[in-house]
Amino acid sequence: MNSIGKLFRVHIFGESHGSIVGINIDGCPAGLPLCIDDFIEDIERRKPGAKGTTTRSESDTPIIQTGVFNNHTTGAPITIVFTNNNTHSADYEKQRQTPRPGHADFVAYKKFEGYEDYRGGGHFSGRLTVCLVAAGVVAKKLLQRMNSTSAIKITSSILSVGGEADIEKGIQKAIDKKDSVGGIVECVVDGLLIGLGEPFFDSVESKISHAIFSIPAVRGIEFGTGFPAAAMFGSDHNDAIINNNGTTQTNHSGGVVGGITNGNQFVFRVAIKPTSSTPQQQESLNIATNTLESFTVNGRHDLCIALRVPVVIEAVTAIVLTDLFMVQQSIKINVK
Amino acid sequence: MNSIGKLFRVHIFGESHGSIVGINIDGCPAGLPLCIDDFIEDIERRKPGAKGTTTRSESDTPIIQTGVFNNHTTGAPITIVFTNNNTHSADYEKQRQTPRPGHADFVAYKKFEGYEDYRGGGHFSGRLTVCLVAAGVVAKKLLQRMNSTSAIKITSSILSVGGEADIEKGIQKAIDKKDSVGGIVECVVDGLLIGLGEPFFDSVESKISHAIFSIPAVRGIEFGTGFPAAAMFGSDHNDAIINNNGTTQTNHSGGVVGGITNGNQFVFRVAIKPTSSTPQQQESLNIATNTLESFTVNGRHDLCIALRVPVVIEAVTAIVLTDLFMVQQSIKINVK
Amino acid sequence: MNSIGKLFRVHIFGESHGSIVGINIDGCPAGLPLCIDDFIEDIERRKPGAKGTTTRSESDTPIIQTGVFNNHTTGAPITIVFTNNNTHSADYEKQRQTPRPGHADFVAYKKFEGYEDYRGGGHFSGRLTVCLVAAGVVAKKLLQRMNSTSAIKITSSILSVGGEADIEKGIQKAIDKKDSVGGIVECVVDGLLIGLGEPFFDSVESKISHAIFSIPAVRGIEFGTGFPAAAMFGSDHNDAIINNNGTTQTNHSGGVVGGITNGNQFVFRVAIKPTSSTPQQQESLNIATNTLESFTVNGRHDLCIALRVPVVIEAVTAIVLTDLFMVQQSIKINVK
Amino acid sequence: MNSIGKLFRVHIFGESHGSIVGINIDGCPAGLPLCIDDFIEDIERRKPGAKGTTTRSESDTPIIQTGVFNNHTTGAPITIVFTNNNTHSADYEKQRQTPRPGHADFVAYKKFEGYEDYRGGGHFSGRLTVCLVAAGVVAKKLLQRMNSTSAIKITSSILSVGGEADIEKGIQKAIDKKDSVGGIVECVVDGLLIGLGEPFFDSVESKISHAIFSIPAVRGIEFGTGFPAAAMFGSDHNDAIINNNGTTQTNHSGGVVGGITNGNQFVFRVAIKPTSSTPQQQESLNIATNTLESFTVNGRHDLCIALRVPVVIEAVTAIVLTDLFMVQQSIKINVK
Repeated sequence: MNSIGKLFRVHIFGESHGSIVGINIDGCPAGLPLCIDDFIEDIERRKPGAKGTTTRSESDTPIIQTGVFNNHTTGAPITIVFTNNNTHSADYEKQRQTPRPGHADFVAYKKFEGYEDYRGGGHFSGRLTVCLVAAGVVAKKLLQRMNSTSAIKITSSILSVGGEADIEKGIQKAIDKKDSVGGIVECVVDGLLIGLGEPFFDSVESKISHAIFSIPAVRGIEFGTGFPAAAMFGSDHNDAIINNNGTTQTNHSGGVVGGITNGNQFVFRVAIKPTSSTPQQQESLNIATNTLESFTVNGRHDLCIALRVPVVIEAVTAIVLTDLFMVQQSIKINVK
Repeated sequence: MNSIGKLFRVHIFGESHGSIVGINIDGCPAGLPLCIDDFIEDIERRKPGAKGTTTRSESDTPIIQTGVFNNHTTGAPITIVFTNNNTHSADYEKQRQTPRPGHADFVAYKKFEGYEDYRGGGHFSGRLTVCLVAAGVVAKKLLQRMNSTSAIKITSSILSVGGEADIEKGIQKAIDKKDSVGGIVECVVDGLLIGLGEPFFDSVESKISHAIFSIPAVRGIEFGTGFPAAAMFGSDHNDAIINNNGTTQTNHSGGVVGGITNGNQFVFRVAIKPTSSTPQQQESLNIATNTLESFTVNGRHDLCIALRVPVVIEAVTAIVLTDLFMVQQSIKINVK
Repeated sequence: MNSIGKLFRVHIFGESHGSIVGINIDGCPAGLPLCIDDFIEDIERRKPGAKGTTTRSESDTPIIQTGVFNNHTTGAPITIVFTNNNTHSADYEKQRQTPRPGHADFVAYKKFEGYEDYRGGGHFSGRLTVCLVAAGVVAKKLLQRMNSTSAIKITSSILSVGGEADIEKGIQKAIDKKDSVGGIVECVVDGLLIGLGEPFFDSVESKISHAIFSIPAVRGIEFGTGFPAAAMFGSDHNDAIINNNGTTQTNHSGGVVGGITNGNQFVFRVAIKPTSSTPQQQESLNIATNTLESFTVNGRHDLCIALRVPVVIEAVTAIVLTDLFMVQQSIKINVK
Repeated sequence: MNSIGKLFRVHIFGESHGSIVGINIDGCPAGLPLCIDDFIEDIERRKPGAKGTTTRSESDTPIIQTGVFNNHTTGAPITIVFTNNNTHSADYEKQRQTPRPGHADFVAYKKFEGYEDYRGGGHFSGRLTVCLVAAGVVAKKLLQRMNSTSAIKITSSILSVGGEADIEKGIQKAIDKKDSVGGIVECVVDGLLIGLGEPFFDSVESKISHAIFSIPAVRGIEFGTGFPAAAMFGSDHNDAIINNNGTTQTNHSGGVVGGITNGNQFVFRVAIKPTSSTPQQQESLNIATNTLESFTVNGRHDLCIALRVPVVIEAVTAIVLTDLFMVQQSIKINVK
């Protein structure tokens, strides 16, 4: 479905080469200061233009259409849209008969029986992640106001590109090979409260991973020590609690135990596959002629989409944590 | 929340040392043959007793209380419970002041303000996974009837234990070290249809990972080539489509592209941390005295909980795929 | 679906002539005192036995299976079941070929393709309302603790039976005619807070009516002045606000404006149809022989089911208001 | 929440005097023909202009922003917006201190702590019902394609205005008295299938009433014979089944038994209160000065909003029935 969240609910819509992409946020408390300027920093971080990213210039000015009045949220749904322009639809139309490997072209064609908007990936396009970033800005503002004792801060960064810990080196590999590469992104959250996450099925990891795997190109996620934990002994992996705030000596758990935040730094890593649109010549089936054919993806694309993902990961993390906070808040009733 | 699924909805309840644990399945079509015998095989696979698993004998006979009449489902909610016995609550009561590292003890105490049922992990106990297995049995039976052209088959297996590809060797490491170890489980699904998964937020990976991270001790998940994909070139990672069934030359994507199944084998791997209850002496805070103390976890525990997880992973996979199938089924309307 | 509620979530299960009927409550805060005694009063009020109600003696002792420990809720799902006994299944089996008018027999047969548990209405039976009463008891206890300035009190009463304002007279009409009769029930809530109800689709009336129409035999609902309001002038119907608490001079709105509670007495009325199982001889189709036949419903039944409904209406009202309160509570974040 | 529906999901947004009002439809199957012309008829029916309705001319041309490509739905979310213009915000700003009786002004002020968009009712405005009509058009098109044996047709009509069965007479009463009046609307659905509606909590009446009470000014709903049924004998009220299609001799149940459609005509009636904005002088509290004051509502308003409601009732009915159909469709699996 195109919605996520139980109380802080986000609905996404739009297509890469349609008139708009947008987001609708329902459940945001009234009175939160909000204006266009709030969005600039994060939207800039997602923008293409750096080495290894596409040269396509996207129109990334958010238009707040509903739910904000006098620069404050009203409690009604917030609609934010981005208009699309500078789109070269023709690039995609001739491609249609030969579904691009790694892209949703073939499955979308099958699932939607040929009625999908195939231009530029349509509704499957990475373009829609700008909407996630916008919703994330609202969520981050809420998170900043939730913890009375410390600021909640979400930070994502690139750990590696194309297998290289040095981003430059990884990108250069791709440029040299005229190919695309993937990367690994780490996200840490500081200042989080103890107690977020809902047994049995809405563990923090469940909710975060659910949202993270909505981001195109994500192939894996691990929390705390993650996959390497599978090779550890229990006595090494367990984090000893050392004070009444729940601070632990080590943080192999990445700040979440039993699916619930424990007040330590929340840490997870995400694997991003290499951009499917590689400059390399590829093979795929021409579904009209039923023959394999060679082709080169046209259009302007990122050599390493991972470079643009960190701010998107922060955004969905903020969305999920806001939602979990609100669920936790809902039971704060003096029941004794 | 203790519910999962949009159409095939599963609600879980119970505590390790309470009278029962159970599951309620809502949305199962009427007319599915179902009897106690259907559950035996999978429940046996989850049972302790093998080398490296606990010697605690659990009462694992499912009691079908509602929703089944004359050995067929009726369309009403199916309730299946398991009674608890052979529980040594005293083992846990004396432990309470010193929350066990790696367990939910401390966060549960904080989140539920001291009212949690702390005996044996209470509602956080791995004991509840027997309920998932039971729901999985129903889901598997539905999956078998969904694909008219081929059987849908889910198979999970242990890839490694304690970092060793040989299970025996991994377990022996734990026995020798008197410690617990983790493991990695792979799950493959054959015969799956093209088109399961719902943009934007209910990709197959989103739904699967959400469910998988409900299983205690899971620390990571990756689809297809997974984390190593981040170090690949795009031209190597892309899977070329070679025929009109969508068969691909390679399967780096693990059978899911754009969040939607593509008809190839669906593959993912799950990292399981070492059992938190290790025989080793550990340190933790005594929250009453506010001092660190050494202790040894009593009770009977698995040295490697990963050994019992494969059938649970199959179960939640079946639950999720059934739900996605039913969502896909709901739009099969001749709209032309 | 067999679930209701966003945060205070209630799942119902069971059949009239199966082993149990039951309810699962998810989302109840931890620490609420709860024991069997809490349920007695409301369950007694629903019991048959009075003039005009069935002489069938139901086993109405709730069994709390999960979610309660040391007489307090734990924050985990609360499961409460009632065992069925004293059931005369044979009464229903011979009836099956001739679906009873007014009952769900025919539609259940069609919807569930002959697999429904047809004994005593199965999952459609009024028997399940005892589960609603049980969930209502928990919700009422929460409501009592929500409003710091005054108690929230829900009271339902019979307004008329068989068209007579005097209950005795209405019942006597039914006894004399050897037929069943309906009735109208009014529910008032005092002490409610201002601000419950969520635009646009979760108005208080939307949520209340949704729940009320789950109760078998309900045919209509109206809020405040209700249907007669359609014949009034606006200047007569409008309730003038007279102080800063929002107190109004009149209460034609029944305490809800724009779908949101306004702090005045919340009032609604519910129409209950005459019991479908009338002692009168009736006609229906024998679906096996495809001929109309006369028959008399056997078994013991209520002449006026409306008499047993008030406490059920209170229960679902409490469930809905608790849920709306928790939603409202979730956005109490200092966002300035 | 501003969303309704489980599979056919509708999200509403916008304010009366903001830039737009709009609707987002998620879950619509791909391939449904859809263009602007499809919306004209129903939107015209909702338009003001007739005797007794406002002279304000609203911009009612739908703009389809997403989810439609080459005049067919794509399977992606459909966004339809209406721009607002011809708004006299100043009319409302001076009114703000004195919340209008019958309107949401006071409760919105309290619930949203003064941050609500108060202009013209903001998000509570009847203006938003144009969005419901638009979503209803899509739903009606789907319904037309669902029943292979007969067309599904929804028809709403005015039964009475101001207590008069003659609409003209009722309106004239309002004009003569310089006041507003209410009315009663009946909705009938022909051609509906047997088996829509989901036990226990999603009866057809539950889902329909939930949606109907989202429409501003609705005060009551009754199905079939409705409130008068409470005064009938069971033998008179029961509808005898006379053939294997489930046709009944009478239709007191209004086509729904046990919460499930029985294939007969589906009938319900809705009570609409008199327009709160009456031309009459009224009293209300000035919340700034805390004194009662007389005032007259300015702006252009309907004398009888009921006149514009029938098409809105049809719309939400279509939305709900489409959703229930899709849920029913989802379990059509050959499980034998």
